[in-house]
Amino acid sequence: MGKPAITACVLVIGNEILSGRTPDSNLNHIALALGGWGIEVREARVIPDMVDEIVDAVNETRRRYHYVFTTGGIGPTHDDITADCIAKAFEVPIIEHPDIAARIKTRPAPPDVMASRLRMARVPEGATLIENLTGGPQGFRMDNVFVMAGIPMVMQAMLSSLEGQLDTGPVVRSRTVTAYLGESQLASALTDIQNRFAEIDLGSYPFFKNERYGTSLVMRGVDEARLDAMLAEVEQAITDAGGTPEDVQTQ
Amino acid sequence: MGKPAITACVLVIGNEILSGRTPDSNLNHIALALGGWGIEVREARVIPDMVDEIVDAVNETRRRYHYVFTTGGIGPTHDDITADCIAKAFEVPIIEHPDIAARIKTRPAPPDVMASRLRMARVPEGATLIENLTGGPQGFRMDNVFVMAGIPMVMQAMLSSLEGQLDTGPVVRSRTVTAYLGESQLASALTDIQNRFAEIDLGSYPFFKNERYGTSLVMRGVDEARLDAMLAEVEQAITDAGGTPEDVQTQ
Repeated sequence: MGKPAITACVLVIGNEILSGRTPDSNLNHIALALGGWGIEVREARVIPDMVDEIVDAVNETRRRYHYVFTTGGIGPTHDDITADCIAKAFEVPIIEHPDIAARIKTRPAPPDVMASRLRMARVPEGATLIENLTGGPQGFRMDNVFVMAGIPMVMQAMLSSLEGQLDTGPVVRSRTVTAYLGESQLASALTDIQNRFAEIDLGSYPFFKNERYGTSLVMRGVDEARLDAMLAEVEQAITDAGGTPEDVQTQ
Repeated sequence: MGKPAITACVLVIGNEILSGRTPDSNLNHIALALGGWGIEVREARVIPDMVDEIVDAVNETRRRYHYVFTTGGIGPTHDDITADCIAKAFEVPIIEHPDIAARIKTRPAPPDVMASRLRMARVPEGATLIENLTGGPQGFRMDNVFVMAGIPMVMQAMLSSLEGQLDTGPVVRSRTVTAYLGESQLASALTDIQNRFAEIDLGSYPFFKNERYGTSLVMRGVDEARLDAMLAEVEQAITDAGGTPEDVQTQ
């Protein structure tokens, strides 16, 4: 028996994603980074800038997963309500964190601008900070919830500071092989292989590229030897179906 | 009083999105298309290829929103479980739909390949079909849940066939203006404007581009005259803060 899996949920907070104005790129970055550390993202939600929606989503997911990571809504304007919502979810007051305030005050500004900027120092009572390597205001952690910026560059700087700080499980490895066959030509062999390698997740992802249909077969699991054995069987199945295994990748 | 808002949730079904292997692009396309028809995406979830997760998410969201749109998991392989999950969510048997089966059978194949391909004809009893303009197997609609492919080209072909078929609300319009100012320099003016235009959603989206910080101010609402009036005030606020309103967009 190896280490147990550690699970996570990502909450992308922002009307701009739901309206389609901005395509989200944070989920993909977080999923890859956490996966590399041994934390499995099991769910993601995109939710609007609305208090009840955020509070409910935080409370539901923080009880269900080891970790919850939020992006967005921690800037200085009226629509930045994430910190207030986290405080409400945990039923604690919101306070001005002296370390964030001190960092903000190193850049001088007129009083009304400074007052707005200091909104970014507001955290739920009991929160600890997430370093922001861009030099801007920090994010924060409240229990198992990590609250990060929405701007990808800033979010990435915050996330990278967490490396080595979190509980991790086994790192899920993968094997990928591409077949220029219809999925149906492989389906029954794949079902048989999946049944014999129950602990490894075998996904079939069809695509249409350069005027050709193909499918990527992705095996994900923690046991490298079993992954290699399964890959060999999948390659054989491709050959048996009249195809050629191509572009094998090991990660 | 105009038409009431019509709301939607998008369920992206697929381990490959959660592992980070594949960045999702379907949500953005669906959000823009539905928004243009007068349907507001209020939530999106990315969930794994697991029966209970899919059933629970479908049942929770179909009761909460006017429409639910799913992508992924309707191919011919063992990991394509969406149709079964929708049947389970609605507590109806799964059947082979004669129209999908007929389309699949127009392309000949050996018996085992055909058997796999016919998995794509399985729909919950009572489902109606969503045309697939690529010529492949159709998607299906079960009550207010629309089940579409995960391959973007196929999903888009299915979605486009729904235009004009759905209930729609007022189309949300937007005005966008960019300011190369810190958000904090505008924050108090924006709060004041938002308070006076309560029915319009004013979002402030900071960015860092070409070595400059700026913020996009996005106003979204259904009343064009009010949007224009609000835009004028936001432009004035930018000028008052020492900036220049740039790149005004009307949509």
